[in-house]
Amino acid sequence: MSEIPKRYKACVYDEPGKISTKIVTLDTPEPGPGEVLINLTHSGVCHSDLSVMQNTFPVPYPTQPGQVGGHEGVGKVVKLGPGSETSTVKVGDRVGVKWVYGTCGRCPQCMAGADALCQEVKISGYYTPGTFQQYCVGPVNYVTPIPDGLSSADAAPMLCAGMTTYAGLRKSKAKSGEWVVISGAGGGLGHIACQLASGGMALRVIGIDAPSKKQVVMNCGAEHFIDVTAHDDTSIEEEVRKMTGGFGASAVLVCTSSHKAYAQALDLLRFDGTLVCIGVPEGAPQPMAKSFAGKLLSKQANACAVLVGTRKDAIECLDFAARGIVRAHIKTEKMEKLTEVSDEPVMNFPRQIR
Amino acid sequence: MSEIPKRYKACVYDEPGKISTKIVTLDTPEPGPGEVLINLTHSGVCHSDLSVMQNTFPVPYPTQPGQVGGHEGVGKVVKLGPGSETSTVKVGDRVGVKWVYGTCGRCPQCMAGADALCQEVKISGYYTPGTFQQYCVGPVNYVTPIPDGLSSADAAPMLCAGMTTYAGLRKSKAKSGEWVVISGAGGGLGHIACQLASGGMALRVIGIDAPSKKQVVMNCGAEHFIDVTAHDDTSIEEEVRKMTGGFGASAVLVCTSSHKAYAQALDLLRFDGTLVCIGVPEGAPQPMAKSFAGKLLSKQANACAVLVGTRKDAIECLDFAARGIVRAHIKTEKMEKLTEVSDEPVMNFPRQIR
Amino acid sequence: MSEIPKRYKACVYDEPGKISTKIVTLDTPEPGPGEVLINLTHSGVCHSDLSVMQNTFPVPYPTQPGQVGGHEGVGKVVKLGPGSETSTVKVGDRVGVKWVYGTCGRCPQCMAGADALCQEVKISGYYTPGTFQQYCVGPVNYVTPIPDGLSSADAAPMLCAGMTTYAGLRKSKAKSGEWVVISGAGGGLGHIACQLASGGMALRVIGIDAPSKKQVVMNCGAEHFIDVTAHDDTSIEEEVRKMTGGFGASAVLVCTSSHKAYAQALDLLRFDGTLVCIGVPEGAPQPMAKSFAGKLLSKQANACAVLVGTRKDAIECLDFAARGIVRAHIKTEKMEKLTEVSDEPVMNFPRQIR
Amino acid sequence: MSEIPKRYKACVYDEPGKISTKIVTLDTPEPGPGEVLINLTHSGVCHSDLSVMQNTFPVPYPTQPGQVGGHEGVGKVVKLGPGSETSTVKVGDRVGVKWVYGTCGRCPQCMAGADALCQEVKISGYYTPGTFQQYCVGPVNYVTPIPDGLSSADAAPMLCAGMTTYAGLRKSKAKSGEWVVISGAGGGLGHIACQLASGGMALRVIGIDAPSKKQVVMNCGAEHFIDVTAHDDTSIEEEVRKMTGGFGASAVLVCTSSHKAYAQALDLLRFDGTLVCIGVPEGAPQPMAKSFAGKLLSKQANACAVLVGTRKDAIECLDFAARGIVRAHIKTEKMEKLTEVSDEPVMNFPRQIR
Repeated sequence: MSEIPKRYKACVYDEPGKISTKIVTLDTPEPGPGEVLINLTHSGVCHSDLSVMQNTFPVPYPTQPGQVGGHEGVGKVVKLGPGSETSTVKVGDRVGVKWVYGTCGRCPQCMAGADALCQEVKISGYYTPGTFQQYCVGPVNYVTPIPDGLSSADAAPMLCAGMTTYAGLRKSKAKSGEWVVISGAGGGLGHIACQLASGGMALRVIGIDAPSKKQVVMNCGAEHFIDVTAHDDTSIEEEVRKMTGGFGASAVLVCTSSHKAYAQALDLLRFDGTLVCIGVPEGAPQPMAKSFAGKLLSKQANACAVLVGTRKDAIECLDFAARGIVRAHIKTEKMEKLTEVSDEPVMNFPRQIR
Repeated sequence: MSEIPKRYKACVYDEPGKISTKIVTLDTPEPGPGEVLINLTHSGVCHSDLSVMQNTFPVPYPTQPGQVGGHEGVGKVVKLGPGSETSTVKVGDRVGVKWVYGTCGRCPQCMAGADALCQEVKISGYYTPGTFQQYCVGPVNYVTPIPDGLSSADAAPMLCAGMTTYAGLRKSKAKSGEWVVISGAGGGLGHIACQLASGGMALRVIGIDAPSKKQVVMNCGAEHFIDVTAHDDTSIEEEVRKMTGGFGASAVLVCTSSHKAYAQALDLLRFDGTLVCIGVPEGAPQPMAKSFAGKLLSKQANACAVLVGTRKDAIECLDFAARGIVRAHIKTEKMEKLTEVSDEPVMNFPRQIR
Repeated sequence: MSEIPKRYKACVYDEPGKISTKIVTLDTPEPGPGEVLINLTHSGVCHSDLSVMQNTFPVPYPTQPGQVGGHEGVGKVVKLGPGSETSTVKVGDRVGVKWVYGTCGRCPQCMAGADALCQEVKISGYYTPGTFQQYCVGPVNYVTPIPDGLSSADAAPMLCAGMTTYAGLRKSKAKSGEWVVISGAGGGLGHIACQLASGGMALRVIGIDAPSKKQVVMNCGAEHFIDVTAHDDTSIEEEVRKMTGGFGASAVLVCTSSHKAYAQALDLLRFDGTLVCIGVPEGAPQPMAKSFAGKLLSKQANACAVLVGTRKDAIECLDFAARGIVRAHIKTEKMEKLTEVSDEPVMNFPRQIR
Repeated sequence: MSEIPKRYKACVYDEPGKISTKIVTLDTPEPGPGEVLINLTHSGVCHSDLSVMQNTFPVPYPTQPGQVGGHEGVGKVVKLGPGSETSTVKVGDRVGVKWVYGTCGRCPQCMAGADALCQEVKISGYYTPGTFQQYCVGPVNYVTPIPDGLSSADAAPMLCAGMTTYAGLRKSKAKSGEWVVISGAGGGLGHIACQLASGGMALRVIGIDAPSKKQVVMNCGAEHFIDVTAHDDTSIEEEVRKMTGGFGASAVLVCTSSHKAYAQALDLLRFDGTLVCIGVPEGAPQPMAKSFAGKLLSKQANACAVLVGTRKDAIECLDFAARGIVRAHIKTEKMEKLTEVSDEPVMNFPRQIR
């Protein structure tokens, strides 16, 4: 293990509200009790990073200048803080840092496995230093071991998009052999959901997206593709009905932030089917659908939501990735290119930055 | 057993669309294969009967003149149709007829226990002769045995309001000792839900309704009452939060057809709590709540719906009634008074007609 | 549709207690109310048929001379009984007859989906005429539609071995990506369970059986095989632990009648894992394992059992077969060869008889 | 808050293997990172304490001389270790110490909520200093807040017997209104289980025990009592069947260490019912029941086990206690009397020692 430098390179949001970052050097932190110091080598870049950078989250916590962003980081443990020696995590292990940086581990939400709703939750890359840097600390109890044989570049996007869609598919209660519709199937969340659903869980997948995404969606394991631009709501419902033997899907995962996708989702469900909300609807609140309660009633349908998966979901999702069942479509760039990457008008696929 | 008359008295909707009924005499039907003939003595009257009579259901099936209404009937079996001898139901047994008159028993919905969504479902009192009459036939497989010791008058309302709120409480997944909010707690559905929740399932109940209902709600086992007229949405949310130790309720059952109640429901939930839709929203479709998906996401909350319980729910609910745990607030009238009963501007509680 | 003959050929147990059958001709029955007449073309032969023929079931119901055996039959509907016209089953449809010939559809067991425990259950080929014949009647509500594109020969074994192991895998609650051990993996039940688990449900399979079965087990989708003759109990436990990353399996399905397999099963489980009993233990009752409760406690493990799947399981299992995911290893013979087939010392795989 | 003394009084096992304790004085420990120092005022005494003292656990870890026993302790937090300030637990709060002293919080068992099977689990009063002393330390994440209004004496037994039977009742999946049998209903575990089941969860209880326990069992909410000395296995089964309307119970909780109770339990179940193993069978391993698998199969029954509840179970159980729904039958003695208390031949009820 090479020596730990005193200072290291980080990429910070220098002007929150704008698409702007700056490379700075920072003092290497000392891991506190129950923490580890990680030498990060890879970090995914995801749509939420852009939201933090641009200050577009609808919460009263403006991003502060100097914030280190990023929340899909992978690296090697280089030092253990006091009390961390008893963990199974050792110096030299590869671990991952997630959107949920750490939890209190004792509040009702933590005890119920609702990590993201922890009363003392800390978010990587938002009021807590994130993963767009060479070194960071993390709680030994909450960092995620990276399986051998899975590259760090491939592991990174599993730590947010992967584990969250994984959690959504589990919550949907769709059983192997049943149909699921994935809205936004060719996007950063969707193309991973398609792979996890088909190869990982033996579900049958119908993907909905723009026609340019057809090939990627089919390559990701979908049996059918619906071109959202070539149909209106009624004809999409008809298509799904035909594709599923007349019934509709057991689950619909909305993996986009599109209000239109949400408005339509219940119509695509089979009786007793489940709508899984994953994509955070963008912009001003809108009604989800006229007569939402009426539609739920007429199908005895269900709805649930996943903000982000738990640390258990992360481990299970990485196991699928290590077995080659799911792999995000990524490209890898140097950290200096971050703004450039983020500045592209559409960021459909997570990209790696190094 | 007295002889079965050739003709008997029934109450029909003579002018669907209006509040109007007429007493007529009809030929006593012969029970077909797998059916039984029932000498009805009691029938509940419920809000849906009024909707059928007045033709206000939002479906393209107008009520036909001459329709015998009613769907909460209790009476004695007086004759078995061919093949019904093998059943445990015998001549002389008391049985109940429900909103779902009968199902095919073999479609996917039936096999999944979603009785009300059966592909060949027949509805009592709507295109199938109902329970506002002295005799009716019913499927031996689908009529519900009435437990000894439970009066027919008390059994009747369990066959719709009782079993449906029962099903909703079960679907809510709220565990004994947890809090549930019941919207419309003093109404026909709500006052039964309160009793089943508190006495039957050891749930802790917060009732919401107009101030005139406070006493009945508290008598039905609620620990807290919220006067819907004295609060706005924000202060109701605050009240529920205070009453539940800061968390919100594990489930909210909407037992009214009020859009306002639906719009507010998600705000009253605890993280991972469940909204149960029961009351059919009246009038034109309206958006349920702004940013419904966003609210589900921020709490990882759930939603489900119960149109009507199953025959299994009916049996289980009647068991609670027979044990004295739940009893509908009713008054009993002669059949001739039906229109008068129905004509009242507000019908909060099921009433018995004989 | 060719004319229905007045008489037809059947294979009966002429001397129950012995391995002996006789071809006879019988009068073609008339379908009663709610029944259909089926022209059978294929029937599986399974170990239970041999038990019925030989009178080795531990119940006080001796097989009667003249009993028509068989309970995995497939054929075409040739006539509808009174009242069966309303069903979706039509003349010309292919349907299957199962171990459970029919149920009352109204007892608590039926309502709870425990078909095989119905209070009035009738068993095909045991006190009810079975499927070793050219014609039989069956309840329109209980016969199983055979999907297009699945041959009748391939459909037959799904109607007992297929649907039962399918039900067992579902009850195990093992999630896709988790490990299951299948005891007797190369047998009639086991080789189907391996295919359903791996290809159908994305489970990871460890098969245990005699070394002669290794190839078939691996071909059926197992990732690992354990030769039961080359290990003692301790070393099997060690092997399973190694293969599962140190934890043990999420579920163990015992698909044999071997007491030894049962005695060992709990040791192969992961904490909170589930033992699924499927094979009926043969011969005199024996203790299952010393300190069974102690073992359950030390792992917080679970146990459950599947006697036979439900009609819903049958439909879902046939869907997997129609998609080519599971296929029983069979050979097809004329009906006259039945005794010969049954008389073989070991009947590991279901065989077809026509 | 009075000053923390330098030394304090503890009760140790001076001659493990014998019923013998000794009062000693010990140095007051300093709470480490993530720990709190607790001034204990009450501790329950339970059968497991006796087993540790007498070295009768069937594990290769002999109790060491000088071990401080006890695992149901309640006291006030008097000091916070480093890092514990961020917790909601404050100096002056009452908290409880449980059989599971603490867990790693990150192993698969911890993430799955199987606290007692944590890979680094520490046990209070067995290789970790227990609660038979005036001061102890505990992990701030794992000690249990004691609700206001519940006396420390009443809280103590909830921290082992209470939370464990609570967990067992939850795992049984018995629904409110259904029947459960509690074996050993008048014992330390059983009399609490009866109260939680009847008053807390609206289950209907049949208690089985020796006739001397009848009164206590009925007082604890049972509807029926079966005198185990007046019946053989067959007649107990008949009794339970009669009491449950012919079906058997939805769950049987074995709250004793009696092999006989375990052998009989499956016979008392309803179809699809669940055996819950709680009491650790004593002495040499014995077969649980002849043909255990056969019995599971014939009823499609289930089995599960609870070694000890989780910290979440502890909190939920204490909530029932605080609401007055469950209260252990206890007597309170000075610490010096411990051996005397333990030396009694039968310890049916938890006792308090101070």
